[in-house]
Amino acid sequence: MKTKLTELLGIKYPVIQGGMAWVSEANLASAVSNAGGAGIIAAGGRDTEWVREEIRKAKEMTDKPFGVNVMLMAPNKDEIVEVVCEEKVAFVTLGAGNPVPYIEKFHEHGIKVIPVVPNLKLAKRVAEKGADAIVIEGMEAGGHIGSQTTLALMTNIIPYIDIPVVVAGGIADGRGIAAALLMGAAGVQMGSRFLLTTESTLHPKAKERILQATDTDSVATGVSRGHGVRCLRNTFTEEYTKLEASGAPQEQLDKLATGTNRMAAVDGDIERGAILVGQSLNVLNEIKSAQEIIEDLMAQTKETLQKACEIGK
Amino acid sequence: MKTKLTELLGIKYPVIQGGMAWVSEANLASAVSNAGGAGIIAAGGRDTEWVREEIRKAKEMTDKPFGVNVMLMAPNKDEIVEVVCEEKVAFVTLGAGNPVPYIEKFHEHGIKVIPVVPNLKLAKRVAEKGADAIVIEGMEAGGHIGSQTTLALMTNIIPYIDIPVVVAGGIADGRGIAAALLMGAAGVQMGSRFLLTTESTLHPKAKERILQATDTDSVATGVSRGHGVRCLRNTFTEEYTKLEASGAPQEQLDKLATGTNRMAAVDGDIERGAILVGQSLNVLNEIKSAQEIIEDLMAQTKETLQKACEIGK
Repeated sequence: MKTKLTELLGIKYPVIQGGMAWVSEANLASAVSNAGGAGIIAAGGRDTEWVREEIRKAKEMTDKPFGVNVMLMAPNKDEIVEVVCEEKVAFVTLGAGNPVPYIEKFHEHGIKVIPVVPNLKLAKRVAEKGADAIVIEGMEAGGHIGSQTTLALMTNIIPYIDIPVVVAGGIADGRGIAAALLMGAAGVQMGSRFLLTTESTLHPKAKERILQATDTDSVATGVSRGHGVRCLRNTFTEEYTKLEASGAPQEQLDKLATGTNRMAAVDGDIERGAILVGQSLNVLNEIKSAQEIIEDLMAQTKETLQKACEIGK
Repeated sequence: MKTKLTELLGIKYPVIQGGMAWVSEANLASAVSNAGGAGIIAAGGRDTEWVREEIRKAKEMTDKPFGVNVMLMAPNKDEIVEVVCEEKVAFVTLGAGNPVPYIEKFHEHGIKVIPVVPNLKLAKRVAEKGADAIVIEGMEAGGHIGSQTTLALMTNIIPYIDIPVVVAGGIADGRGIAAALLMGAAGVQMGSRFLLTTESTLHPKAKERILQATDTDSVATGVSRGHGVRCLRNTFTEEYTKLEASGAPQEQLDKLATGTNRMAAVDGDIERGAILVGQSLNVLNEIKSAQEIIEDLMAQTKETLQKACEIGK
């Protein structure tokens, strides 16, 4: 399947694996890239040596293109950028900060730049400044979220942008991929679907909880404070949302949330940790290899797109 | 364009105009029905005589099918249901309450029943109890909203439901309609798009504000309290969201919000009133007749589906 994204990155299928803290490392990223998508190593919350090592590991595990997600709010962002440039990955996705000052530097090192943008104004700005593509991520995504939904972003942004648009948030099956391509996307980014892979290091208890979860189990904490994080409803979220609605000071909320992602993903504490996963939970029912998942997704995408021929008659 | 929805309601195009308080009356509903969609009169906040009169007016203005939206939290819901049954409209949409006790009664009067459901569990329940179709409405919609987005709802619900599914929330152009149909929807419900019609009675100042609004102007108030309402950012929403985050008592928030929908829609107070409109704002740039809007939408829907057909080849 050829799209502007597959051409830009030199990949077989228009699917990027989303950067997920504590989960997206060399093992998962290389598996996705070997399967024809584009894997991503998430640098958020990591030190430079970890990032360098994971990039090198991934290069040993695949000769296909993969990327790194850089959190531009991280205190060590400049050092991370240095390491990524030295190690030369195929592309970066840039979130949570202003990507513009970094575009030229990455380009000088032959690295494609794909900022994550929350609205049309910023999409236009990064396109003008030379970004190679953008990611628009709806608030049905797991983890840190903005305010617009995936459908709203696709409606509001795609018609006005010439560079390739990668759509993320709530896409968990081939129907969602087909819908995004139909709306004009060049590809999709999926996180949650790749949590449930044999290659993902997410703690087995968290995987099991996601397998069992249904559509009403998703909750977004912190939205009223402008710091939305989507995860599964549990002891942690009950406590957090109650405090949030009571008007508790932000420091108290931050203290409660600190380290909870790691607690769930690494330690397997699925009650007091934050299980970051998107809202499209009813179709996440199986753990498979990244290869099987991508093959299944692409088959369903094609089948869904072919239905459009019938409906459109 | 034939779908399960056009067959169910006997309409030409799979487009329902969403029920919008203070705006959806005989004039707009009949215009949409005359154009080949299905108009809706919104009974929420109205007395029985108003509803009876609007149904009769609409019947004079169109011989095509139209419906009534009944708010099941309204204190006069039972009287409204009586009037709708006496006056016999083609269908009802039922929101904000339990629709099950009303299905049989409407059916006895030959009225099709289309509940609005927030999750898969309730979708299955109303389907079992004889509902003719369901509406799933994402939180990118204007007005009262749930927590799931349109894409999440389409992903989570459509594969598991046999009755026709009408998709609402954030659909503002033919691309969105095509995406919904591709995901397996039998049709769509659109509200915001029909606010900007020559036939809509929305105050001209509110129409003008929506025309000017862009994607960052949308805000959802009350989400942290479980009573989300989406509208345009203005003096009212700034005050409300500040109070909401401060932990103010719900009564204080309710007092601030009471009457604000009418203030914007009827009185044209676009700073202290609540301008209810969805999140897909960048493509809402023109006021046209309902007929023109529906023709344009259908042309774009077909064109988009044909493109999808090409991509899938």
